[in-house]
Formats: sequence, structure tokens, C-alpha cells
Amino acid sequence: MADPWKEAMDHAVAAARDAGGVIREALQKEMKIMHKTSSVDLVTKTDQKVEQLIITAIREKYPSHSFIGEESVAAGQPCILTDNPTWIIDPVDGTTNFVHGFPFVAVSIGFAVNKELEFGVVYSCVEDKMYTGRKGKGAFCNGVKLSVSNQDDVKQSIIITELGSNRDPEVVSKIFSTMQKILSIPVHGLRGVGTAATNMCLVASGAAEAYFEIGIHCWDVAAGAVIVKEAGGILLDVDGGPFDLMSRRTLAANNKIIAERIIKEIETFQVERDDV
Amino acid sequence: MADPWKEAMDHAVAAARDAGGVIREALQKEMKIMHKTSSVDLVTKTDQKVEQLIITAIREKYPSHSFIGEESVAAGQPCILTDNPTWIIDPVDGTTNFVHGFPFVAVSIGFAVNKELEFGVVYSCVEDKMYTGRKGKGAFCNGVKLSVSNQDDVKQSIIITELGSNRDPEVVSKIFSTMQKILSIPVHGLRGVGTAATNMCLVASGAAEAYFEIGIHCWDVAAGAVIVKEAGGILLDVDGGPFDLMSRRTLAANNKIIAERIIKEIETFQVERDDV
Repeated sequence: MADPWKEAMDHAVAAARDAGGVIREALQKEMKIMHKTSSVDLVTKTDQKVEQLIITAIREKYPSHSFIGEESVAAGQPCILTDNPTWIIDPVDGTTNFVHGFPFVAVSIGFAVNKELEFGVVYSCVEDKMYTGRKGKGAFCNGVKLSVSNQDDVKQSIIITELGSNRDPEVVSKIFSTMQKILSIPVHGLRGVGTAATNMCLVASGAAEAYFEIGIHCWDVAAGAVIVKEAGGILLDVDGGPFDLMSRRTLAANNKIIAERIIKEIETFQVERDDV
Repeated sequence: MADPWKEAMDHAVAAARDAGGVIREALQKEMKIMHKTSSVDLVTKTDQKVEQLIITAIREKYPSHSFIGEESVAAGQPCILTDNPTWIIDPVDGTTNFVHGFPFVAVSIGFAVNKELEFGVVYSCVEDKMYTGRKGKGAFCNGVKLSVSNQDDVKQSIIITELGSNRDPEVVSKIFSTMQKILSIPVHGLRGVGTAATNMCLVASGAAEAYFEIGIHCWDVAAGAVIVKEAGGILLDVDGGPFDLMSRRTLAANNKIIAERIIKEIETFQVERDDV
């Protein structure tokens, strides 16, 4: 089979669009909020409903496939990537945004076979932007081909990062210290829209040169990773080593020059891997 | 005249929509960038073209009115608010975003008579969102009435601020220190989309509880100030004193409780007023 996963990606696009419709509808309504690990990391009924919607739609067509989903893992399911075809799902990336009606919320669906990412779908549902990337086939937003920025002067760059949901003072200090050092390179600006998936798509679109974050999960970045790579960008660990989907350390950049300059300023901190 | 400035606001909406069209068109094309005061504060030919477009459209109908526009002031025009009806214009709010294609760019048109703001129009042109607010008549986005958030627990809030374009190390340190203290209250999150006008509209929409910034200009906030106020919010100086359009210190919030809690954490720094 020369093009084995095209149909699966089309299926993911349809599931993401349906899920986005549910999210947009929920955004119009009053939401009952439940607390998860902290007041910052909010989870709503919509997350669970949307994840079930996506998994059900995919399982119908691919009953033998595996799933790693944010809400399933929160409910005690394992978070281990095997060689079996595996769908890696964040039903509502940007839950804090969602709860506040801040206009960036994404459905993220990545797909891996033999532990290799084959395609990714990110649906930024408030903006109605459908991002896709498939190995060797390019990346697209609403059908328009994406290319990363060709900027190699970091001083002309926009860098994306997030403050995250960890409020441990030591971690917060490191995050701010890193941000301050990067801003003072200087760069044109720092941004962050509150969802890793959309942040990565902004790098893929050329709107920013790099995105990095420590502490995000595999479901936040699996789809975006394919989209960045297929738009001509690179994925690395935040220390410059190879990208590891399960390490919770992601750097996506337009090129190696920008990536290496940013890595110099990143103060890392310890996070537990997704797959332990 | 019971409703003297309705027609003027309609005129501003039309001018903003036309201007937004020019900006969107320019975003599609390669842009030749000129440098202004620093590599961060970029100005393009589009800014100047759009400001002239807006001023010409308004002057045709209101030849006796005064104008304060970002590009006109940069070109040496005075930045003094008199009792004469005055249009306060930022043709492209979020120039750094514009240059990078980061998807938040706004046209901002405020209008004051006897030094009192009468209405404001903010057109977030990539999102195609037209925000308006007129004294005593409410605030709207694409025709839908806006209300600020009713949250009064700061720990459940999203606060918006920006790093700005000043790279003086002392200023940068104060900005980061303020952000870190606010994050550690803790709040749900900090955001900032790179344009003051849109940031203020996000407060008016209830997507965030407060926005503050030191160093922005009257043309960045004049329109947004009316929109926030008409959505039920409040405007203050960053030290809690009365809002002063020319002071370059703005705090917009959903209510006094949130505003006062945030003010406690803001480390101020010196900026020169707009009207000196």
C-alpha cells in the first residue's frame, strides 16, 4: 500500500470537525467546571464528551487500533506507545481558554504506527482553521500549503512559549527567567495563545519562528509535530537532543539556527515522562 | 441633538472595515519593512497608507475635526487633545504581529469631544471582528452585545498584559517581576495577543478579567477604553487613580475587586506622557 493512511487522516479530519462543533456549541453555554490537579488545569464535561465522541468514531472504523487520550489517561488508562497503530488525542487543547471563552481552543489528533508519527490533525475550532500534516505529503491549513518562516536571524523572530499550569515557585522562576533571557536577545516578541497544538501550527504557518515548552503531554504535541515537520520545520528536545514524544519536552522551530540559539537560553526543570 | 455621534461612528466603522481590507491584502504580500525606534517597533508602508486612508475618509465628512494618529505623530504632528472633536487613530495596532503574520492585527479609531471619549471602533481584521462602543449605548462585537466577566475571584481569572517594545533591562525586569507575582497569586493564566486594542476587547467580551500595560499610547487604547466601559468594565491608572488617556498607563478590568488586586502587584516604571 503506497499511501496507507490517507483514509485514516480523512477520518480524523471529519472527527475533529464534529468535535469542534460540539466545543463551539458548549462555548455558547454556561459551563459547569470540575477541578483537576489544580485550579489552573481545568477540565470540563465537554473534554470527556468530546474525547468519547472522537474515540467512538475512530474505533468504529479501526477496532484494533490503540488510543492515548488526555481524559482516558486521567481516568487511569495507560499512556504507553506500542507498535500498534495508535491515535493520540487531546479533545480540547487549551482548556483554560475554553473555560474563559478565550478564542483559541483546538482538537488535536495524532496518529503513530510502529511508534512513528504518520499524520496529525489540529482543528482550531473557534477560528475554524483545520490544520493537517501527513508524513511525506506536506502540511496544510484549510487546504492551503504551509511553510515555516525562512528567517534565520533570531533578532527578527517571534518565539512562542507558555507559562504552563505548574505553580511551583522554582519552576515558575525558571520559566520567567528563560523568557526574560530570550526577550533580551532581543527577539521581536514572545507570544503564546494558550494551546500547544495551535502554537505549533503557528510555527508551521510561519507566524512564529519557534515554540518550546516543558511539561506538555504527548497528546498536546503529537499532531502538531507532524504539521511542523511537514511544513519544513524541525522538532527537538529542549536541550537539542532528538525529539521524544513521551518526554514532555518539545521544541519546534523553523530551522536549526533559530532552534540552537533558543536552546542556549532555556532553563530546564524536571518533569515525569508520560510513559511511566 | 440627542444622539449626536451615531453617524460619525457609522462612518468610523466603514473606514475601519476598508482599512482592514487593505491590511488583509497586505498580509498576503511580501512586505518591505522599515525600522522605527528599534527592531521591535516596526513600521511598514501599510501603516502610513492605512492611516492616510482613514484620515482622508473622515476629513471629507468632518473637515473641521482634529486628528491624532500614530503615524502622523511619528512624522512630527502634535499629540495634544483639545476640546475640538478629535479622532484618535491607530491604523495597524499590532505591527509586530502584522509583520510576522501573527493573526491579531486591529484598526483602532477612538473619538473624543471636549476631551471626553464618545465612541470607539476596533476592527480585528484577521478575525473579521468589528467591536464598537458608544457612550451610554453599550458595546458590541459583530452586532452581539458585549458584557465583561462577572468573576470577582482573582484566582479564577485570566489577566492580559504585554511585554511591550521597550528592551531597557530595568524595565524588562519590572515587567517580568510583575507578571510572575500576578501568576503566583495564582491566577488561571496570563495572556496577551500583541495588540492593546484587541486585548481590551477581550476584556470587554469577558474572555479575560483585566488588561494592563505601561508604555502604550493614546491611539492604542482610546477606542478600547470606550468598548470596555460600555461592556460594564472600568478604566483606571495602573496605580488605581483615574484613567488618563495621555498618561500611557492603562488598566482595564471587569470590576473594581479584580482591578485593585492586580494593582497591588504592578511594579510601575517611568514613561513620558503622550502630550508633552
